[in-house]
Order: sequence, then C-alpha cells, then structure tokens
Amino acid sequence: MAKLTPYEVEGEVDYNKVIKQFGASLIDNKLKSKLNGIRLVDKNVFFAHRDLDKIIGKDFAIVSGRGPSAKITLAHLQLFKFVKEMQDKFGCRVFIPLSDDEKFLFKSKLSFEESKKLAYENLLDILAVGFDPKKTEVIIDFENMDQELYNLSMKCGKTITNNTVRSAFGFTGDKNIGINFYPAMQIAHILYPTVKYGIPSLVAVGVDQDVFIKLARDVAYKLKLTKPGDILSKFLPGLDGGSKMSSSNPYSAIYTDDSMKDIEKKLKKAFSGGRETLEEHRKKGGNPDIDVCYQYLNLFLEDDEEKLKEIYDDYKSGKLLTGDLKKYTIKKTQECLKEHQENREKVKKSISKFLV
Amino acid sequence: MAKLTPYEVEGEVDYNKVIKQFGASLIDNKLKSKLNGIRLVDKNVFFAHRDLDKIIGKDFAIVSGRGPSAKITLAHLQLFKFVKEMQDKFGCRVFIPLSDDEKFLFKSKLSFEESKKLAYENLLDILAVGFDPKKTEVIIDFENMDQELYNLSMKCGKTITNNTVRSAFGFTGDKNIGINFYPAMQIAHILYPTVKYGIPSLVAVGVDQDVFIKLARDVAYKLKLTKPGDILSKFLPGLDGGSKMSSSNPYSAIYTDDSMKDIEKKLKKAFSGGRETLEEHRKKGGNPDIDVCYQYLNLFLEDDEEKLKEIYDDYKSGKLLTGDLKKYTIKKTQECLKEHQENREKVKKSISKFLV
Repeated sequence: MAKLTPYEVEGEVDYNKVIKQFGASLIDNKLKSKLNGIRLVDKNVFFAHRDLDKIIGKDFAIVSGRGPSAKITLAHLQLFKFVKEMQDKFGCRVFIPLSDDEKFLFKSKLSFEESKKLAYENLLDILAVGFDPKKTEVIIDFENMDQELYNLSMKCGKTITNNTVRSAFGFTGDKNIGINFYPAMQIAHILYPTVKYGIPSLVAVGVDQDVFIKLARDVAYKLKLTKPGDILSKFLPGLDGGSKMSSSNPYSAIYTDDSMKDIEKKLKKAFSGGRETLEEHRKKGGNPDIDVCYQYLNLFLEDDEEKLKEIYDDYKSGKLLTGDLKKYTIKKTQECLKEHQENREKVKKSISKFLV
Repeated sequence: MAKLTPYEVEGEVDYNKVIKQFGASLIDNKLKSKLNGIRLVDKNVFFAHRDLDKIIGKDFAIVSGRGPSAKITLAHLQLFKFVKEMQDKFGCRVFIPLSDDEKFLFKSKLSFEESKKLAYENLLDILAVGFDPKKTEVIIDFENMDQELYNLSMKCGKTITNNTVRSAFGFTGDKNIGINFYPAMQIAHILYPTVKYGIPSLVAVGVDQDVFIKLARDVAYKLKLTKPGDILSKFLPGLDGGSKMSSSNPYSAIYTDDSMKDIEKKLKKAFSGGRETLEEHRKKGGNPDIDVCYQYLNLFLEDDEEKLKEIYDDYKSGKLLTGDLKKYTIKKTQECLKEHQENREKVKKSISKFLV
C-alpha cells in the first residue's frame, strides 16, 4: 500500500483499505441522503466518517483548521467550500483554528514572523469562501490564543504520554519538545467547541489526518467530553495525475493566487486521458476517468450535470479532443479563481468579525 | 552527596560543592557590598549566582515565580520578602509567574479547579509582602495567559529537544507530553521581561532550580536574547532540623495560615541545640548554630542585631535556656505571621492591579 501518515502521502491510495485499517466507516446511502446536495459528498470525495450518523440532525460544530503554509491550493479551497455548504445547510457553527505555531515548530527554517504572515494570508483565502460571521470563529494561535483553548491544551496534554505520541506519530528524541507537545494543542482545537458550547465537534479533514481524531476521541473520553466525529475526504488529484494535489509540490498544484496566465500554462501541461495522436483519439476515444481536467470539472468546476455528462461521453467517444477539454477547463478554472481573488480582497476589511 | 534536583532534595546539602558542580559562582565580597543591607544576602542565605555582577547596576527584572501548592511556608515568604527588598533598593521590575499549569500536569490527582484555587491562595500570600503594583506583574497561566508569553514558549520549545529534557530532568516515555513540554514554558517565564522590556532577567530561586536557569541561558543564546542571571538561595532549615523547610512535609514547616496556637505547638517541638538536662545546659551551654529557633531568629525574625548577638552568646554559655529561647521565638513568629495574615486579607481587593 501507499504510505499514508499525517505527515506524508506517497503513491496510489486504496481508500477502502485505508478506512478499514483506520477503523472509520464509509458514508452509506442512508447517511448520504441526509447530506443530499452537498457537492463533495455527492461526488464521493467526502466518503468516510466516524460518528457522523450520531452528530447530523443535532446541534454541532464543524472544526476545519489549517496549518498555514506558503500557498493555498484549489484543493484546499474545495474543502472550505464544503464546510461552507455544510454551514448553509445545517446552520452549524464553524471553528477554524490556524496552527501557525505548529508550522513554526515543525519547519526548522520557518521564522516566527513568516509563520504569522502565512496565517494571515491563508486566512484571507479561507474567509473568501463566505462563512457566516455570526456562526464562525477563528483562532490564530500566535495572534489570538484563547485562555480556554490554552487551558484545554494542558488538560489534553495531561492525558497523553510521550510513548503514545511516539507510537502514533513516530516522534523521536531529536524532535523538539514543541512538536512532541503539539498533538495536545491539535486535540484542544478539535474539542474547543465541545467545551465552549457543549456540542459535538465534527472534524472535516483529509483521510490522512484521521489518526488525530482517533486520539482526540480517546482524550475526550478521558476528559468526560462528547467524542468528536469526523468526515473524511479523499485527496484531490494533482495536475500531474498523482493522487494528491499538494501545496509543497508546485507541479501538482494550482494555487489560489495563480494568475490567469499561470492557470492556462499549468492546465495545458496537466495529465490527460487523451490518446497519443489525434487520429487515435478520434478512433478509440479518451479516458475521462484518469483525465485531470475532467476530474476538476466533475468535482468542483462544472455545475451543470447534463453538460458534464455530455463532456464525459464525448471525450470517451473521441468526439471531444484533449485540447478542447483543456480549453474549457482553463476557462472554468479562471472564472472560479477570479471570483475567489476578488472575494479575498473584499474580506480583508471584515477579518476582525471572525476572531474569537 | 545529597540528592538535589528540581524535584527532589534529600539529606545534608554541601552548598559549596553543589555550586562547583553546577558551575555557578559564590557571591564575593565586592558583589556583597553592592547588595549591602539586603537581609538574606547579609545572612548568606542568598549565596551564589550567575551573572549577577553583570546585571546589578543596570535596569533589570527579577523573576520569582511559584508552582502553586497547598500551602506557602514561612520559608517561601522569606524568598518573596527578599525580592521586595531588592525592588525597594534597586527599583527593579518584578515578574511573578504562577505555574498552576505545571502543578496540574505533574500531579496526577490534582484537578484543574483545585490548581486554579491554589494559585489564587498562593498569590494572596505573595502579594501580602507588599510589592509595588506599578513595577510588578503577575501571570497565572490558567487565568491570564499572555499572547507574548505563549508565543515565547513556542519559540523556546523549538530550540529544546526531547533528548535534552530527558537528560536534564529524567523525563521518560511514560510521562505526559505536558510535563515534557513544560521546561519551554518555564523558560518563557524567565525570558518574558527580556522580550517585553529588553532588560535582563535575574531569577531569584532555590539552588535546586539552577538547572532551569542553565537551560534558559542556552535558549536565550539561541534566540539572540540577553542571557538571564540568577541569585541562588540555600534552603531554610525545617522545624525538624532537616536541611529544607518543605511545604510537602508538615513536620518541617510553619505555614503562613497557621494559627497562633499552631505556631506555638510546632515551635515547641522544633529541633533544639539545648542539652539533655537543665543542669547540663547550665554547665556546658547549648549550640545555637544547630538550633532551629535561633536560625529563624537570625535569618528573618530578629531585626535587632545586638539582641541577636546577646541571644547567641547567652545560649552558648548556658545562661539562656531552650524553653525561654523557644518562648521568645514563638512570640516573634506569631507577630510576623499575624501581620502577614492581616496584609493577606487587605490585598484581596488589589489583585487586579498586578495582573498583566
């Protein structure tokens, strides 16, 4: 199998196998019907969970944080759009912890000032998605650390041994003591709405982060708090056809601040399901299931399902050429990011409304 | 030699040997003359240091914190009185961190609520000493954690490995990750005034805590901050004649909330330098140098040096009997603690003036 930890994703991921190993559950049809209309659930990107069935229908909070890094990708953006859709549909609270402290601790060369700057820049991207300020709270650890959150991190830390983090995350003696402690703060982020409002937390997160939720559930039990649930997403495919669009791999990623020209250049080079020659493509057809442009249209760019089906069928039959599919995807991506970049500018004025 | 770590003191302590081992310096006569009139320096209780010679004479801050525990003893009180004398003489800032979080992490059965209560109770004792509210700041970690302090703890934590705390403090895999992280917060407390005001910190502390200052100096160097200094005290003798009055050993300690009756009972049982029988005492004389009552008078109860000399000589000659020495010491201790207990009540109204 592929390597899959909170700090590393390599190779092809067999999601069903992963879920079985982790002990999470697939989202079944009954549960899916309750989430009807949430795009990334309909598209099977959010595909697994813990306790989602117990949480949906009651009052709950979604926790969806971010360890701020240099760039937010189109993939990250989809995760936050999903959270906004959930907020719109269920009226739930959203808690967004930005762990600039975590990134600072883990990256030896990242300075304190740079960590803070990244948190601010990432926050603009996140808030551009359009959360309800009355029901959305942001904590940037280096900026507005909350007394309740700090206290909770110590309560969590008291229940976790060095041996536990060593076996769960492989932290060895040469790691700094901040890294070693960090799972306590991570779990405090997860349990924060539960302590503050007495409602369960649902963590919306990539499947690679599930180990934190497992640990958070153990800690919640020890602290006599309602265990958090999670809703787990697959990775969005990278431009190169790899299984993850990763912000640290520029060949795989479209960033939210890419120019219209960048987008065009990147998508022109994206991995395609087309044939070697025009003749062969016309004759045998392409493969939309592995075509990156088609994936992006399907997962988050094309709202018209009929149009999408037409593209799928035409590409498969060879009627639609790779160049034309790319051209269309470039246009849709440019529209999507242009709108995002405008919203990102506007949101600068209203950040303070979201800070705890 | 005796066992001496930040967490354990056992047996007789050979202070000169300890200082040599640690690599601190004795306070020499030149330095002593600069501190002339500071009682516990005159009495050789504060006897050693790091960089005190570089710090005295400039603008500096004294850091003197407390891990809140059930009771404050007469010995603790003397430490804080020393700090107040330093503030009066040198006009320095005083920073008092109360690490209720530390005690919570280290004591498995201590609840969060109880930790907070202890911090409040201990703070009353400390502030009763009479610090200048304009130059004195208190942080109770679970109550008014400061963003600057939190950020600093992460900066410190980034520079310290798990291996380092394991070798310095013996923290093993079964310890919780809060304990393992705690030296980072401890050192952040020490460096806080340096970061906030750009002045060096002088830590006033028992000699057993020197290892933290050593580590703090390494961290300061890595963070390009002025290294903190320290001024180190011997332990005050326990009632039982042992080398440390310890709050966790009720047979050794007078507590600040002891009743007048408690004080009498305890001092009557205190270890004495008297002879077995009255006749023998009259004939051979007592030994004031090992007599607990005489130590207390000498170190912090008797302000009149002539009177003190008279007591010393009369006890040694056999003229002063143990019962009479005890009676006098009981009276002085009762006066001292009665005044303290009154001040402690008064200070309840002004706590907020001291919180950061």
